[in-house]
Amino acid sequence: MEIINSAREMTLYSEAARMRGARIGFVPTMGFLHEGHLSLMREARRRADVVIASVFVNPTQFGPNEDLAKYPRNFERDCAMMETVAVDAVYAPDAAEMYPPGAQTWVEVTELTRGLCGRSRPGHFRGVTTVVAKLFNITKPHLAFFGEKDFQQLRAIERMVADLNFDVEIVPMPIVREADGLAMSSRNAYLDPHERKQALALSRALMVAREKYLWDARTPADLAAAARAVLEQNEAVKIEYVEAVDAETLEAAVSLERPILLAIAARVGNTRLIDNIVLRASAVSRERLRA
Amino acid sequence: MEIINSAREMTLYSEAARMRGARIGFVPTMGFLHEGHLSLMREARRRADVVIASVFVNPTQFGPNEDLAKYPRNFERDCAMMETVAVDAVYAPDAAEMYPPGAQTWVEVTELTRGLCGRSRPGHFRGVTTVVAKLFNITKPHLAFFGEKDFQQLRAIERMVADLNFDVEIVPMPIVREADGLAMSSRNAYLDPHERKQALALSRALMVAREKYLWDARTPADLAAAARAVLEQNEAVKIEYVEAVDAETLEAAVSLERPILLAIAARVGNTRLIDNIVLRASAVSRERLRA
Repeated sequence: MEIINSAREMTLYSEAARMRGARIGFVPTMGFLHEGHLSLMREARRRADVVIASVFVNPTQFGPNEDLAKYPRNFERDCAMMETVAVDAVYAPDAAEMYPPGAQTWVEVTELTRGLCGRSRPGHFRGVTTVVAKLFNITKPHLAFFGEKDFQQLRAIERMVADLNFDVEIVPMPIVREADGLAMSSRNAYLDPHERKQALALSRALMVAREKYLWDARTPADLAAAARAVLEQNEAVKIEYVEAVDAETLEAAVSLERPILLAIAARVGNTRLIDNIVLRASAVSRERLRA
Repeated sequence: MEIINSAREMTLYSEAARMRGARIGFVPTMGFLHEGHLSLMREARRRADVVIASVFVNPTQFGPNEDLAKYPRNFERDCAMMETVAVDAVYAPDAAEMYPPGAQTWVEVTELTRGLCGRSRPGHFRGVTTVVAKLFNITKPHLAFFGEKDFQQLRAIERMVADLNFDVEIVPMPIVREADGLAMSSRNAYLDPHERKQALALSRALMVAREKYLWDARTPADLAAAARAVLEQNEAVKIEYVEAVDAETLEAAVSLERPILLAIAARVGNTRLIDNIVLRASAVSRERLRA
């Protein structure tokens, strides 16, 4: 496994791979890897000839009062994990390489990033789309893999790729969960044992809302209310939002007939967690289940 | 010469050229070509294996009260001219191909686009950098050619390429002038014979300022004042700005020791024209000239 720090070298590596006809699969990460990241890399391995992963804690996607400084890092462990899934090359730049003095260009997706996490994290998605545009230009992938846990991020990147004509296929991959249902996240490392238990409220709330969806929900608001009721039973859980939105546009959902994203952001102690589920059973299948 | 309208086809064309090892030179234009555009295409022909030009009047770089609707167009004549300089492929999309419903991604260069034309044309450079990012992703050039007449545009694009790690070399090319000094521009077609004469004030003002620079200017402000004095002799010329700025940062120039961009925007009748000159003689050469 090659470890590459400079953009120039990374681009030469990718260009050489492309020139010999290899398909490049790319998995961008902020490191401190877990099974969710590895599932993306395995799929990249399956679908591409050359697998590149990046490890970069991107400062421009953190707000001034967020956890950039204490974001968990362990590059050696990350490398060992990437070896196990046969990653070919790791791009690991430092911040000065990515944002040299004078850098002043932003890539921004507007409507899709206004609600949900965009509301409480101004500038976050601008930082994400900017760094992903840079990483695409540096690593030149044919395919790039993103987890659905960061669903709004996934939609913003799909939009950016379409709008800016990036010649990259975005492959969305399902959320990977711990055995008890907690969505995997590098930030789970912040949780103490008590908080770890309380954090289960998020996935449980989604499961309860899913039952509601299948059995007796009449409006999208019913789903959000059902999830909210579960979260409110846990005093250690501070809700940031619980929203049922159209899974394509991320605008407030108006009907159960189109795919719905039910998304939660909440703090457990000082740790901000997110989770979501996409509900796409058709009205017909919901009828059948009820029958 | 191939004429290609779809982004998908254009990308396949370019990808095929890259796969066979060809170097791609790209010249983006808004059509209604003149000798300035052709000089870019000739240089592309000289330096690249495959020359692609685009013809697209980009709506997002026009303000609501600007000349989008009446911007001069003559695609047949453009094609005939491009044949004479051996362009290989012309990418000529329509606006719906470039900006389909739902498009919402912008590429923005911040500091460099605040002053000069950016002040009177809010959103203009955001439209330029967005469409150029799209065109780079669609045509996948190794080299891209831009004229120095749109100097601020050139700097913004160079900045975007560096900041977003586009693997494209930007080649700046000198302003091409009519025999009497008028900088070539598609918008010169708007000028009636009287205005055409008055428009010479711009290039004359730059020449006078250049003399000043070589002989007795003490500060950058002296240069702007000399140019302004020439322009003010022509009542048909309405100055928008006359500025001496640092040619790298486009911030107000503070000394004659660094390269200076002297830039003019003015209306002649209803036609907005721009022109500029970069003054880069060193202090030593200025001393020598004075001796």
